[in-house]
Amino acid sequence: MNNNDIVKVFAPATVANVTCGFDILGFPLENVGDVLTLKVVKEKQIRITKIEGFDLPYEASKNVAGVVIQKLVEDLEIGFGFEVEIEKGVKPGSGIGSSAASAAAAAFAVNELAGRPLKTKELVKYAMEGEKLASGISHADNVAPSLVGNFILIRSYDPLDIIRLDSPADLFCTLVHPHIQVNTKDSRKILKKQISLELAIKQWGNVAGLITGINLSDYNLIGRSMNDVIIEPTRSILIPMFDKIKEASIRAGALGCGIAGSGPSVFAFSKGKKMAMAVNDIMREIYRNIDINFDLYVSKISPKGAFVIKNGN
Amino acid sequence: MNNNDIVKVFAPATVANVTCGFDILGFPLENVGDVLTLKVVKEKQIRITKIEGFDLPYEASKNVAGVVIQKLVEDLEIGFGFEVEIEKGVKPGSGIGSSAASAAAAAFAVNELAGRPLKTKELVKYAMEGEKLASGISHADNVAPSLVGNFILIRSYDPLDIIRLDSPADLFCTLVHPHIQVNTKDSRKILKKQISLELAIKQWGNVAGLITGINLSDYNLIGRSMNDVIIEPTRSILIPMFDKIKEASIRAGALGCGIAGSGPSVFAFSKGKKMAMAVNDIMREIYRNIDINFDLYVSKISPKGAFVIKNGN
Repeated sequence: MNNNDIVKVFAPATVANVTCGFDILGFPLENVGDVLTLKVVKEKQIRITKIEGFDLPYEASKNVAGVVIQKLVEDLEIGFGFEVEIEKGVKPGSGIGSSAASAAAAAFAVNELAGRPLKTKELVKYAMEGEKLASGISHADNVAPSLVGNFILIRSYDPLDIIRLDSPADLFCTLVHPHIQVNTKDSRKILKKQISLELAIKQWGNVAGLITGINLSDYNLIGRSMNDVIIEPTRSILIPMFDKIKEASIRAGALGCGIAGSGPSVFAFSKGKKMAMAVNDIMREIYRNIDINFDLYVSKISPKGAFVIKNGN
Repeated sequence: MNNNDIVKVFAPATVANVTCGFDILGFPLENVGDVLTLKVVKEKQIRITKIEGFDLPYEASKNVAGVVIQKLVEDLEIGFGFEVEIEKGVKPGSGIGSSAASAAAAAFAVNELAGRPLKTKELVKYAMEGEKLASGISHADNVAPSLVGNFILIRSYDPLDIIRLDSPADLFCTLVHPHIQVNTKDSRKILKKQISLELAIKQWGNVAGLITGINLSDYNLIGRSMNDVIIEPTRSILIPMFDKIKEASIRAGALGCGIAGSGPSVFAFSKGKKMAMAVNDIMREIYRNIDINFDLYVSKISPKGAFVIKNGN
């Protein structure tokens, strides 16, 4: 244990899948995320005392942050309890890792107060417990980038193998979140369980291209590889104006465009901030013309994952 | 047209698929390949005058090199004919791109004698015509590395997008070719046309890992990623002692092991030549103990594709 008994942490929103990289790739956004304050208390219980921003369960066993903290308390044999305050900056159901940001923040904060017994990568499996509560599946492609930062490749789940990839310096993301709700559970249900080998080969050809583009800072190759022939054709139906946004963004000069996570948010990659801002204007224009509210973000691929905002009182 | 009317070229044997990279990845071996001599003749016809090493059709329209030359003659509107001599160094049915080596050599030689109107990458689609004759499918994962050299990623077939990846400097391949025949056509037939999304995700996670390992010279990651959960379980049944070779090679220190192309050759990657030689000994020992003849090769990932051995008489 260290001397601090209170810590305030930030964990970013994240974009999982990244077109063809379904379930294996994700990255964090800058400046959008959840803030979680964790305070040590004597009583060995987890008490959520405040949730700002959105309406979420206060009961620890039903709260994403709560279950993550509980699991860490058990495994690290922590002899005290916690009070938790959560400021949700990521809207649930937005497709940019709302539950993941809370889960990552919770895992990161507990580890800080426990004197950092675990490496950040080792926290991923704990944060995955929160994902399991939220979506029924303990996936890592949001929690890992939210904890670790940068592009994160989940090569394998068993054993869990997480690889951090440096992002090309000039790669920017434009992201629009239309205010319709797509539930991750539902959005997984509509996926086919069997796919053709032919399509699968196309997909892993594009995965290989996208990864090479990231590794070698080949922006054009990143763009050419941003094709999801398996998930997007099914899921994009749930997102209003998806085809138009994608087509207009790419026509304007974006490298590529796809669904953020399970949607409904849509993201595009651009080379340089100027182009990312132009794509931002295009997305705004398209959603302004229909009766849907939306949020827009322009961000680098954040090299930072979760971090401490403030230690101690 | 240049002044030379005869050229002798070499095109290397190649390993396609490279475990998880089914249909999208391949690399050439050093010092194993086909030698093709092409001579300009006045009569506008393609005449194969000599085939050494193996018994293959002399009729140009039924010969892999013949059809490649014919296609180039048509597209480049070449106003003369050719005499062709082929020294097969790659055994048909070996799984290391026998037809591809002939096809690549033929395309490369015609381009040389025609004064190099096409870039080497542009020759790939012509060499693919030879593959189509040989296996019924015009795949590129042998002809592209045989022509271009180094690791070759076929990101997409439509449009054809070929990306050359530098190999880690210390990466060696040990390859054993047991003398049993596996026909590419048959070996494709046994593959399932539908696969589970779950397995496909595992596969592209490994593809992403393997490509990252190659791009960043991370040998350990290359090894961890060499898992083919889709093709190998079916095809390896046709290869005697496959499981034993794989297990013993990895236990001895190889990074990973898999089927070369559609088999029956089996390859392993190692860091450093010393380890690759040790794996060579292990493979020899295993096949010596059963009644099958075999060839063994130890090779770097050749940075060279097809090249001119001799220009002019």
